[in-house]
Amino acid sequence: MKALILAAGLGKRQKENGDSKPLIPLLGLSFIERVILTAKKSGIKEFQIVIGYKGKRIQKYLGNGEKLGVNVDYIYNDEWRKGNGISVLKAKDYIQKPFILLMADHLFDYKILLALQKQTIEDDGCILCVDKDHHKYLDVDDATKVLIEESQIKDIGKQLDDYNGIDTGIFLCTPAIFDALEVSIRNGNDSLSAGIKALAKRHKMKAFDISDKYWLDVDDNGALKNAKSLLFEKLKKNTDGPVSRILNRPISSKISELLLKTNITPNQISLISFILGFFGALFFYFGNYIYLVIGGLLVQLSSIIDGCDGEVARLKLVETEYGGWFDSVLDRYADAIIIFGMIHGHWLLHNDIIIWTVGFIALMGSFLNSYTADKYDVIFRKRIKVNRMRMGRDVRLFLIFIGALSNQILITLAILAVISNFEAIRRLVVLRFKYA
Amino acid sequence: MKALILAAGLGKRQKENGDSKPLIPLLGLSFIERVILTAKKSGIKEFQIVIGYKGKRIQKYLGNGEKLGVNVDYIYNDEWRKGNGISVLKAKDYIQKPFILLMADHLFDYKILLALQKQTIEDDGCILCVDKDHHKYLDVDDATKVLIEESQIKDIGKQLDDYNGIDTGIFLCTPAIFDALEVSIRNGNDSLSAGIKALAKRHKMKAFDISDKYWLDVDDNGALKNAKSLLFEKLKKNTDGPVSRILNRPISSKISELLLKTNITPNQISLISFILGFFGALFFYFGNYIYLVIGGLLVQLSSIIDGCDGEVARLKLVETEYGGWFDSVLDRYADAIIIFGMIHGHWLLHNDIIIWTVGFIALMGSFLNSYTADKYDVIFRKRIKVNRMRMGRDVRLFLIFIGALSNQILITLAILAVISNFEAIRRLVVLRFKYA
Repeated sequence: MKALILAAGLGKRQKENGDSKPLIPLLGLSFIERVILTAKKSGIKEFQIVIGYKGKRIQKYLGNGEKLGVNVDYIYNDEWRKGNGISVLKAKDYIQKPFILLMADHLFDYKILLALQKQTIEDDGCILCVDKDHHKYLDVDDATKVLIEESQIKDIGKQLDDYNGIDTGIFLCTPAIFDALEVSIRNGNDSLSAGIKALAKRHKMKAFDISDKYWLDVDDNGALKNAKSLLFEKLKKNTDGPVSRILNRPISSKISELLLKTNITPNQISLISFILGFFGALFFYFGNYIYLVIGGLLVQLSSIIDGCDGEVARLKLVETEYGGWFDSVLDRYADAIIIFGMIHGHWLLHNDIIIWTVGFIALMGSFLNSYTADKYDVIFRKRIKVNRMRMGRDVRLFLIFIGALSNQILITLAILAVISNFEAIRRLVVLRFKYA
Repeated sequence: MKALILAAGLGKRQKENGDSKPLIPLLGLSFIERVILTAKKSGIKEFQIVIGYKGKRIQKYLGNGEKLGVNVDYIYNDEWRKGNGISVLKAKDYIQKPFILLMADHLFDYKILLALQKQTIEDDGCILCVDKDHHKYLDVDDATKVLIEESQIKDIGKQLDDYNGIDTGIFLCTPAIFDALEVSIRNGNDSLSAGIKALAKRHKMKAFDISDKYWLDVDDNGALKNAKSLLFEKLKKNTDGPVSRILNRPISSKISELLLKTNITPNQISLISFILGFFGALFFYFGNYIYLVIGGLLVQLSSIIDGCDGEVARLKLVETEYGGWFDSVLDRYADAIIIFGMIHGHWLLHNDIIIWTVGFIALMGSFLNSYTADKYDVIFRKRIKVNRMRMGRDVRLFLIFIGALSNQILITLAILAVISNFEAIRRLVVLRFKYA
């Protein structure tokens, strides 16, 4: 399916951030790039963009879309000062089949489009995604409201008194929208809402409830801040352990925000996290207390940076399965090398052979911990139920950090050995009864 | 969808193996159990079984199907001495919708039924699965042949001179088959083929080509042997490494054949393999050469038995995702414990600290070897391209076996350390360029 994106307007309230609203950068991507990549994630590869105000700059910035892995064509709207209904109407000659209609300055969950594309649509009708909740980021006064009755839109407008939903600006349209707009523009109203209203009168305007998914109309600076928080909020994983949640994630998201201003790739970040862990292990290797402290700090920093690769990938919408895999494998190597450094340092100072056995068991547990989590994950297609004490890499590396600062390598490895193996075996037993 | 299974006939050629053909045991399951469980794997849970000769025994054996996790009802055919068309017709009052028709003495790939259920069928038509290849196990003289033209069956019969396919005895029918059989029986031919012929004349009999999948009509003792080889042939995995293919699999399949005569479960076999590995490690732990030999033999035996759990599970059609996961996790623990035993034994005799470092790296590589294989597997949904030298657990344990027999623990661990880490990193790099 094709998508039509409206990017012709002036966006005056946004002007202070730059002179073309769709090109305002937000966490590594301009607005319009994010709209395109979000749509791409739902399977859309063909885009028509209606440009007007500063259109040449948008055109130069996006080109033919190749850079984003999609196909982009442009439609110029010389009447961009007028209502947005005219922008839609300009696409009439280029679109003959049902299409998705999007705004260049909206942020949304790609799952909305996944679900929307599965809706059946009448040949002469349209579907508007509506939000029935008072969305927490939403400026209700300024929003376009809709009145819905039995999945049909009855009325639409900013000044509606009686309403039960919000217009999200995400549509599944047929070319019937063009005919409706021609009539409403002839009648003197050049807004898209007027066209929708005309279709609604003929019972041809369905509402599709997307209240359970996120979206945001970023129309002023307040909304821009909200957009940022929303995107960061979406980064939290339900598999984040306690250390991740309380310590690592808040720091890594700040670092990611800086990294997003550079061209660094998520795989490069994975590699940096690995190298930090490796140097941490190298300091551990020599065993002296001052080295342990430096090593411990490096390991904890590595653990924090380990969160950034995924964050940057998700915020830039460039996640790949390879990237996740690469990160996991490097993590396992780092885990092993760090434990080896601890063993060797302790051995060097204390010549105590027991450290090798304890370290070996800690490595075994550490691996089995990850192995059972990942295997479980991919086989049973959902995460192991997360509890606050979930034993994961964040906890393991934090224990090592604390152990290094307190100069207690043997005890730390012993604790790691016990709890990580305990957790691996616990999973084996628990799942036995749940899924056998 | 429901399945109707014909199990009424005498099967005289099979009589020497027992007195009820559908109940003849083959590798852990009776024929009819295998038919039911194969169909279940394709999603069918409701079965009607037409019984006749020794029907009470079948009924007693299968009960209401609860034991197999399905629902079984019985239809008694008192005219079981006559043609099999009558058996089908007896089901007329019990079936109003399209259904799958199967023979109790046929062996087949569940994927045939998966594909067949997706076929669109006319309200008054039937579909017969046909094999266009001269199947290597097939007794062509005795087979029912079909003549196919443009996916329509034109003629059917054992004595057909002009034919281009074989009747596999697997059908997707509508109740139209009952009307066709009533006519053909009235005309004096009580075979199922006669009904098919009648439908074919009215262009209502489609052919569905399943030549790329396996099936087998087990109608005499020769076929019974072929059935055995076929089932064992299907056990080979394309991920089997060289040691598996040449040494382990031929032995493990013999052991599995014995195990299938007992009630032992696949998970119990996984546990036995683990315990053998554990005892192998225990012998390694003491380091003396005689212990190394015993340990090496136990480890190699453990590696062979490690193939039996999957074989028994697949032959008995009781594979579970948990079972595979349980086996993998136990394997990782056994890998670690065996390497630990080797390290400790060597240390005990030679007091050479380098063994700990080498052993640690071997453990790391061994884990990463499995980790990259499994992760790859589940993420990219197909196996890493198998080459003859694939580095897997079969190779690792065989190296350990050879190393123990030749009393070269340090060198063995060093080799393991190098090649397993090399292989893990190679995968990381190769996939980078294939999937990044």
